[in-house]
Amino acid sequence: MKIFDISMSIHPGMTVYKNKEEKRPILTITRDFVQGAGARETRITMDLHTGTHMDAPLHMIAGGRDSEIFTPDNTVARARVLDFTGVKDSIGPEDLKEKDICRGYFVLLKTQNSYEDFFNPDFVYLSQGGAEYLADRGVKGVGIDALGIERNQPGHETHKILLKKGILILEGLRLKDIPEGDYLLFAAPLKIAGVEAAPIRALLVQTEE
Amino acid sequence: MKIFDISMSIHPGMTVYKNKEEKRPILTITRDFVQGAGARETRITMDLHTGTHMDAPLHMIAGGRDSEIFTPDNTVARARVLDFTGVKDSIGPEDLKEKDICRGYFVLLKTQNSYEDFFNPDFVYLSQGGAEYLADRGVKGVGIDALGIERNQPGHETHKILLKKGILILEGLRLKDIPEGDYLLFAAPLKIAGVEAAPIRALLVQTEE
Repeated sequence: MKIFDISMSIHPGMTVYKNKEEKRPILTITRDFVQGAGARETRITMDLHTGTHMDAPLHMIAGGRDSEIFTPDNTVARARVLDFTGVKDSIGPEDLKEKDICRGYFVLLKTQNSYEDFFNPDFVYLSQGGAEYLADRGVKGVGIDALGIERNQPGHETHKILLKKGILILEGLRLKDIPEGDYLLFAAPLKIAGVEAAPIRALLVQTEE
Repeated sequence: MKIFDISMSIHPGMTVYKNKEEKRPILTITRDFVQGAGARETRITMDLHTGTHMDAPLHMIAGGRDSEIFTPDNTVARARVLDFTGVKDSIGPEDLKEKDICRGYFVLLKTQNSYEDFFNPDFVYLSQGGAEYLADRGVKGVGIDALGIERNQPGHETHKILLKKGILILEGLRLKDIPEGDYLLFAAPLKIAGVEAAPIRALLVQTEE
């Protein structure tokens, strides 16, 4: 059993969406050895959309399902990594048609984003048409290696098409070292109650089958 | 494959260590539909020792290894749940001798704590002698269903005996529904860089073998 870590590292200098300062995580040491405490303790303040995280319907749909949707059944799943590193702008139906998309799978979109360690405002995203294509195929979830699954779509169509069908969105993946293929995805988010998203330590397990 | 969620739910009213108000997580909605934003976004402030979490050596040992120790190799492992629900005060060598403790396993201590949804100042813990016994057996990690693995030991001996040997400590488990036996533990903490602990969505996988 080989395990790949596909998560971003969380720290104050990390890449955050649109480089917004207010989105940076803040770490505060509340007890420390130099104070004679005999222990170190730290407190973190972070957006729930920091680094590798999952969106629930409530992120984009008023009254939608919140983080209670993040059960193990919904977030541990067969996953297929699809290589779209040749795509320049957005992934659409014409790109997806070249791949085998399976019902019930998490589809993880590997793009040039995985090779960039800064916020690129022109990051590769999933187009509205691409989201419709994947929703029609009955996928369980869609992951991408950008902090957002779409950009410059004021109506947030990509998010809404997926979330309205209960298809979970996994953002902020790091897929540079992951070959196209099938894996078992462990992407159960932190169990924060009543929220619209939560951060994750996401892992891919390569089994022998 | 059956998956058990052994994590605490994180919310402002949850159980926190010694009921300290300053240890409660705080959720702040930063964007919302009622403001016309078309989306909801939330920020969290939380202790890294909130709910289900893992301690690195740096928690109790000045200059000890920090969260870089939380690799998949160290946090995804064979695990054995041991039933100590009959123990009243602390788990010591005499209790552990009755169980089969395997080198390289995570040992998860199931106690009366799993049946309490409040902070009990007399929670069942692992004694210094118990920690020495487990360290001698070469376990990979030790988990317990309390927010601390020890109490009323001013020198934090239980923590230090384990952490000095690089044995990871998993606290805040919920094991009420988990029968004694062998599982595959997925307990990779959130990937926060340079800290002494991190929260986890911890899962146990029951395989067919």
